[in-house]
Amino acid sequence: MAVQQGVPQHSGGMLAGWKFSNFKDGVFAEYFHVNDADMNLAKLPDEIPLPSAVMISDMMTTGFHGAELANIPIGGTVVVIGIGPVGLMAVAGATLRGAGRIFAVGSRPKCVEVAKSYGATDIINYRKGDIVEQILSRNGGQGADSVIIAGGSPQIMISAVKLARPGGTVANINYYGSGDIIPLPRTEWGCGMAHKDIRGGLCPGGRVRAERLIDVVKYHRVDPGRLVTHVFHGFDNMEKALMLMKDKPADLIKPVVLIDG
Amino acid sequence: MAVQQGVPQHSGGMLAGWKFSNFKDGVFAEYFHVNDADMNLAKLPDEIPLPSAVMISDMMTTGFHGAELANIPIGGTVVVIGIGPVGLMAVAGATLRGAGRIFAVGSRPKCVEVAKSYGATDIINYRKGDIVEQILSRNGGQGADSVIIAGGSPQIMISAVKLARPGGTVANINYYGSGDIIPLPRTEWGCGMAHKDIRGGLCPGGRVRAERLIDVVKYHRVDPGRLVTHVFHGFDNMEKALMLMKDKPADLIKPVVLIDG
Amino acid sequence: MAVQQGVPQHSGGMLAGWKFSNFKDGVFAEYFHVNDADMNLAKLPDEIPLPSAVMISDMMTTGFHGAELANIPIGGTVVVIGIGPVGLMAVAGATLRGAGRIFAVGSRPKCVEVAKSYGATDIINYRKGDIVEQILSRNGGQGADSVIIAGGSPQIMISAVKLARPGGTVANINYYGSGDIIPLPRTEWGCGMAHKDIRGGLCPGGRVRAERLIDVVKYHRVDPGRLVTHVFHGFDNMEKALMLMKDKPADLIKPVVLIDG
Amino acid sequence: MAVQQGVPQHSGGMLAGWKFSNFKDGVFAEYFHVNDADMNLAKLPDEIPLPSAVMISDMMTTGFHGAELANIPIGGTVVVIGIGPVGLMAVAGATLRGAGRIFAVGSRPKCVEVAKSYGATDIINYRKGDIVEQILSRNGGQGADSVIIAGGSPQIMISAVKLARPGGTVANINYYGSGDIIPLPRTEWGCGMAHKDIRGGLCPGGRVRAERLIDVVKYHRVDPGRLVTHVFHGFDNMEKALMLMKDKPADLIKPVVLIDG
Repeated sequence: MAVQQGVPQHSGGMLAGWKFSNFKDGVFAEYFHVNDADMNLAKLPDEIPLPSAVMISDMMTTGFHGAELANIPIGGTVVVIGIGPVGLMAVAGATLRGAGRIFAVGSRPKCVEVAKSYGATDIINYRKGDIVEQILSRNGGQGADSVIIAGGSPQIMISAVKLARPGGTVANINYYGSGDIIPLPRTEWGCGMAHKDIRGGLCPGGRVRAERLIDVVKYHRVDPGRLVTHVFHGFDNMEKALMLMKDKPADLIKPVVLIDG
Repeated sequence: MAVQQGVPQHSGGMLAGWKFSNFKDGVFAEYFHVNDADMNLAKLPDEIPLPSAVMISDMMTTGFHGAELANIPIGGTVVVIGIGPVGLMAVAGATLRGAGRIFAVGSRPKCVEVAKSYGATDIINYRKGDIVEQILSRNGGQGADSVIIAGGSPQIMISAVKLARPGGTVANINYYGSGDIIPLPRTEWGCGMAHKDIRGGLCPGGRVRAERLIDVVKYHRVDPGRLVTHVFHGFDNMEKALMLMKDKPADLIKPVVLIDG
Repeated sequence: MAVQQGVPQHSGGMLAGWKFSNFKDGVFAEYFHVNDADMNLAKLPDEIPLPSAVMISDMMTTGFHGAELANIPIGGTVVVIGIGPVGLMAVAGATLRGAGRIFAVGSRPKCVEVAKSYGATDIINYRKGDIVEQILSRNGGQGADSVIIAGGSPQIMISAVKLARPGGTVANINYYGSGDIIPLPRTEWGCGMAHKDIRGGLCPGGRVRAERLIDVVKYHRVDPGRLVTHVFHGFDNMEKALMLMKDKPADLIKPVVLIDG
Repeated sequence: MAVQQGVPQHSGGMLAGWKFSNFKDGVFAEYFHVNDADMNLAKLPDEIPLPSAVMISDMMTTGFHGAELANIPIGGTVVVIGIGPVGLMAVAGATLRGAGRIFAVGSRPKCVEVAKSYGATDIINYRKGDIVEQILSRNGGQGADSVIIAGGSPQIMISAVKLARPGGTVANINYYGSGDIIPLPRTEWGCGMAHKDIRGGLCPGGRVRAERLIDVVKYHRVDPGRLVTHVFHGFDNMEKALMLMKDKPADLIKPVVLIDG
């Protein structure tokens, strides 16, 4: 009944939408069984290249969801922590919601270049010192309206809460794979009374969502194609592409495998 | 107490914020008395030219407020009715909130050109037929997620409600100067049950608002300078500029008078 | 796709949910075809009498939806226009959302008695003068935070907008059966800039909604049984009950027909 | 500028509103300096006794704020953790927002009695086993729509997150006085993707708020007088009352000292 509670992502149990594409056998097979597929099928316009299209249904909806959860006011100051493919889409999403200044935290040159093209105004390299100090110092000591977490271990939450102003929002789209807890810093969370909302959620799906994101691409609001740094052809290259994601060479953001005719 | 009810614009009575700048004597004098001025003073960065700066405090905050009231989802379809200076800022505001397709209703060539530069994807000329028919026909018979009214007589509300989908929003930033009523179309408002919200409000002011809009300009999200088609210098040209707004030559969007040193 | 746009009531076209129970043949037959019935079936606890139960699925969800649309702050001042069965549930709904003072507009003694029992603090009789004057005068000249329309012709909207304060909300759950337009008063709607939201929508359905309303009754928050003034038994009395709703005797609020064993 | 960011509680720095009444010298003196007092002064109706009145400005606004932050749907299931005076007002606040079932966690007999009178349907004693197991077991294995934390050490957050359903809200009005972190349970927070919002904030003040809460009492929606178990007279008894709050006898909820003429 999660669909009637406003969170269809969790219909059939918490994270059921995510489990569907991660645990169900055959997701990389030639054919895959999808129930109620019509709820998620949208027509792809000819002008959108296939590599861009596959970015829409995962990276884009996830990164943009970070921006949606983050309650960004027009002209607001935003921090995006992590500029892998999802973080880059969160930067683009923050721009798309009208952010003013956007601090993006990351270090890989290719990702930094794309982050700037998506609207990041300040790049913060965590190797050059504590990111909280770097950002607050550049921002006149003020916290940000919105902080989006798109990477890191559970400890990153401590920095995120410190970076938000009273009344601001921390939005998480990061998957935390290990650890028992995710810590909030007691003092900077105002001993419980700072009005810093902590949110986090699985990306939305569905046909209406897909059609809207397709329009974002079709009308040139955001080009997700910049995420695609490597394109392979044919089923046989699937493994090579997956290994690339594991090895993470310097020029990689996201590989795509096209199963041609 | 309107400030504690969340609508400081109406503090001291409905529309008091607007009356302040329209009814209080001396608004065009060399010096003008402003109470609690500190609540509205923001530092203007050197890189923003003065003509752009004056667009921020009126056209931009008003047009953007239309986009804020309109509940635009990322990738949503938006209609902006009227592309005078406020309507143009509503187009820019809709783009800034992540709209996908944007229908802009207007006809003056200079305004059409700027509307496209701010993100309008379809220009609808009301001289070429009913705007409701033109837009619904182009949009596959579907209503828009959001409709922003930035011009027209009270009758325009009928078209606006017809253009919104069930669950969509009509946002008004137009000043209706005459007539007893503003009509909603009974049938298309679902006999009262269509979930089409009708909203309308005076633009927000204040220092925080000003600083955020300044960031929108400073970080090159939107350039309000395109609205300024005529620049005058010196107090003596005030009347000439005002007459221009009355005469509306074809190449006018907004005149500015600079009171130089 | 309305379900994915957040308004399942309009899935299959505007007001489709309403049309289902009004236009589809056989709604009063012994058996009636319902598609996807499982989405709407909820278990009724033994302790809730059947006449109360049928109030839940129509009067209660509709009246409460008025309170939901009306954005009532805790302790806020609310006006409910119309105290037929839906309006009475709107009074109960306003109390349930934490309203302070509640003005209820009506005149029939039985309805007035039940309105008071549901939380109305002031009864306004429209036969004793203009309701706007009566209410504003009693409320120190201030408009209400929320106005719920649960009865009247389209002209009632004029009074409702006059009764709302700047920043307040008018929520409509009334069905307007005739007329071309529903008028907003131009001046009191702030010439378009008063921040008085005008909303209106078909009641929500679904199993989750039903289960929540059942809990409202089960845990003695609201007793909808007070609406049921006449109970009939057997299919043969259906017509008699319907005629009662047409004739509206003084002691009628709502009749129920039980189709026993 | 926090007032323009929507959180006047933090105007002058995070928690400045709270610091005002805790750190500023003289808060227990015969006279106390309050700046901009007019923003917070409201007229007290004669019919509200003074002991109830002082509950309004602290316990009630805080407890009710928990209910406001908690996004309670009409008929929703709510858990309130802690039933000291603030928690009891959170129970009353949850009832006031239309909750269906309310689980209240506590053990002191006097508090349990008052919790039931304010609308708690199930009392959970933490001395009788893990509260998460007790509540989920009674609630058919389902999490609650809303969880309000009104007591406990930082570890209580782990139980609260476990108790919320996907899409639900945890609202904190508890002051955490020690510890470095407040832990979220990684797995039950959906590895970051459960859509369980974590919120927490200092109570709102201001005249409009005060007037609304006064109406809640005046119109008999909630009687905060039940919190007042001990009444003292005269300045000299201040210390005795404070010691009572430290010693917490079994029959204490809240003491009040009246400084009579």
